[in-house]
Amino acid sequence: MSAPTGSLAAAVAGDPADPELVRRARAWLSRTFEPGDGEVVRWVERSGPVAAVRALVAGTAPAGVRRRAGRRSGTDQSLADLAVAARAGARLVVPEDAEWPRAALHCLTVAQHRHGSTDRTTALVPPLALWVRGGPRLDELVDRSVAVVGSRASTQYGDHVAGDLSAGLATRGWTTVSGAATGIDAAAHRGALAAGAPTVAVLACGVDRAYPQGNARLIARILEDGLVVSESPPGCAPLGHRFLVRNRLIAALAQGTVVVEAAARSGSLATAKRALDLGRPVMAVPGPVTAATSVGVHQLLRSERDVQVVTSAAEVLEAVGRFGVDLAGPPPRPADVRDDLSDVARRVLDACPVRTGVPPERLAAVAGCAELDALRVLPVLELHGLVERTPTGWRVARPQPQPHGA
Amino acid sequence: MSAPTGSLAAAVAGDPADPELVRRARAWLSRTFEPGDGEVVRWVERSGPVAAVRALVAGTAPAGVRRRAGRRSGTDQSLADLAVAARAGARLVVPEDAEWPRAALHCLTVAQHRHGSTDRTTALVPPLALWVRGGPRLDELVDRSVAVVGSRASTQYGDHVAGDLSAGLATRGWTTVSGAATGIDAAAHRGALAAGAPTVAVLACGVDRAYPQGNARLIARILEDGLVVSESPPGCAPLGHRFLVRNRLIAALAQGTVVVEAAARSGSLATAKRALDLGRPVMAVPGPVTAATSVGVHQLLRSERDVQVVTSAAEVLEAVGRFGVDLAGPPPRPADVRDDLSDVARRVLDACPVRTGVPPERLAAVAGCAELDALRVLPVLELHGLVERTPTGWRVARPQPQPHGA
Repeated sequence: MSAPTGSLAAAVAGDPADPELVRRARAWLSRTFEPGDGEVVRWVERSGPVAAVRALVAGTAPAGVRRRAGRRSGTDQSLADLAVAARAGARLVVPEDAEWPRAALHCLTVAQHRHGSTDRTTALVPPLALWVRGGPRLDELVDRSVAVVGSRASTQYGDHVAGDLSAGLATRGWTTVSGAATGIDAAAHRGALAAGAPTVAVLACGVDRAYPQGNARLIARILEDGLVVSESPPGCAPLGHRFLVRNRLIAALAQGTVVVEAAARSGSLATAKRALDLGRPVMAVPGPVTAATSVGVHQLLRSERDVQVVTSAAEVLEAVGRFGVDLAGPPPRPADVRDDLSDVARRVLDACPVRTGVPPERLAAVAGCAELDALRVLPVLELHGLVERTPTGWRVARPQPQPHGA
Repeated sequence: MSAPTGSLAAAVAGDPADPELVRRARAWLSRTFEPGDGEVVRWVERSGPVAAVRALVAGTAPAGVRRRAGRRSGTDQSLADLAVAARAGARLVVPEDAEWPRAALHCLTVAQHRHGSTDRTTALVPPLALWVRGGPRLDELVDRSVAVVGSRASTQYGDHVAGDLSAGLATRGWTTVSGAATGIDAAAHRGALAAGAPTVAVLACGVDRAYPQGNARLIARILEDGLVVSESPPGCAPLGHRFLVRNRLIAALAQGTVVVEAAARSGSLATAKRALDLGRPVMAVPGPVTAATSVGVHQLLRSERDVQVVTSAAEVLEAVGRFGVDLAGPPPRPADVRDDLSDVARRVLDACPVRTGVPPERLAAVAGCAELDALRVLPVLELHGLVERTPTGWRVARPQPQPHGA
């Protein structure tokens, strides 16, 4: 391992579009802030990661952001974190990378603007960066994926059904995402592995740690073909708050969420609620009404009209299949997509520069609209392939090469 | 037992409002026609029961009705049937009786007009009469009742849950209605009996028979405090078609229907579908997805958005309680109910005579509307307590005595 080199203050004075500087800046932000903080995420989105770090080091960042950083903003572990990660076979995937699961996480960007920033506990904001350990590309693995979650205190029935579901999803080419916890999570990962498919574990601690310790061998097995993902940098402990924000990440990465067994106040119900907040299909596997391990599942089915009963992998794919196809590749770009844009969206699109990306507040000033409006329409424009995000901000998307004969 | 006396032809020449003649006429109709036949029921409603029998004996009834009666219209077993019933402790309850479960069966009158007469299999028509065996008043027992139905091939789990539900309903003052079949039906009746409450068994055969034979003791036990009900006259065998029309009667009599266990094509699913057709709350008790006995329940929950998961008697009453209160007594009659009537309803009401009831076609002629429109609004007027049905047809309802101080 090479020792950390280069002072952060000197580094962030460099080109804000330099990919390695962007990665280092996001590594630093990931260590400095707890994940799932809306104010921080929005501010980094607006400034760009390099400028954000520059402002924090210089003490010119907004007061709320500086307060959250606290004394951490005086230290720099970014190169060390990246080195520790690399030694563990992990990398930092950032929004500026091709590997970023853009389509999946788009729902968090939408939710962030819809739900506002008041309720911190819901944490419906995109991650600043993702620590990813394992071989496959993250975006490709979650593109057709389903979250299978449930009780830690599962029964043989629940373990059996979770394993069966994941194996069934695997044989149909779908990835199982879960939290590597004891019980249903572990059974779900094992079902996918037994079917010879990669699976994705999203942890509430650093990707170099195995939590719970009892699943260390399972996590090692997951890493052979699949991925372990976390928002927290290497070495981080699985603190309570991180489970809540981890749950929203599971709900966002997967195209749909299935709850297998859940007692009355199970954490997996929180994951299901997050998935509903994100507009994802949520499904529940019923069980005997006499079993405490199914009480939460039945409550969920009773209280949320949008939660669907499922009993097999085929039924799960009936619910998510359509979404999977729709989001599988870049969405088709009809000839007249510009005609369908709102007035604000058209003005923001016209304000986008062709070469160097600019932050949303500049776009809003040029387009003559509120910054919030610009933030609201940019993801839509991006989804239509009309604009793209660069480290310095938004610009018009480069035209995609058309297939021959198109 | 007194021998049958008096020729039918001579009897039906008498006063069509004579209650005993009405009862005999309906006993004869009940023996002559299979239950659940829309054309027959509508014709009897229009003619009145005594005039209907008169027309059939004289050969002047509509061709379709005569064809259905076949050679049966040449024989008369009415007094014998009434005598056999009386000997078994049973009676014939007719729509002209105070005991007729008018509020509960109103949904069939509504469904009959909504769904039309083309699909005979759904049989969504009111009964011509009900053979009732046992002590309590039928209308009072079903006023706050829930149907608990399910597989004949039930498991211990299903039996336990059905019994528990019915006992829980009983302790809250609600009656369980079911079909006295092996499996879930029997467990439901037993649960109510164990809680010391009367229960109602609706049979597809005559009330003097015990079907299935294996439940003879259970049926005898039901008769000690509760009721056994059938549309078919004494001695009738439980033919296949009668189960279908029996199921719609269970769905109509109860304020809501709960399916406990049901295999893929269980008859209890038909009862649930009938209850949905009738606008009744339908509930399902989930079970292990690995059990064949719950496959039909889960299919029902997946295919019908209006079917609610329930796990306890309290949850059942959450769904039906409101309806139970609303339909418990005669609905309140607001001072301005006439102001809310449609134009047609007001004209039909104005056309109703004060003394001797007249058939709907006469009302339609006076009101200047189609007969179908008159048939559509008459149940509404009846529900509001504005009109009432007599053996000869409809007339303005006698004002109810007002409670003191009202």
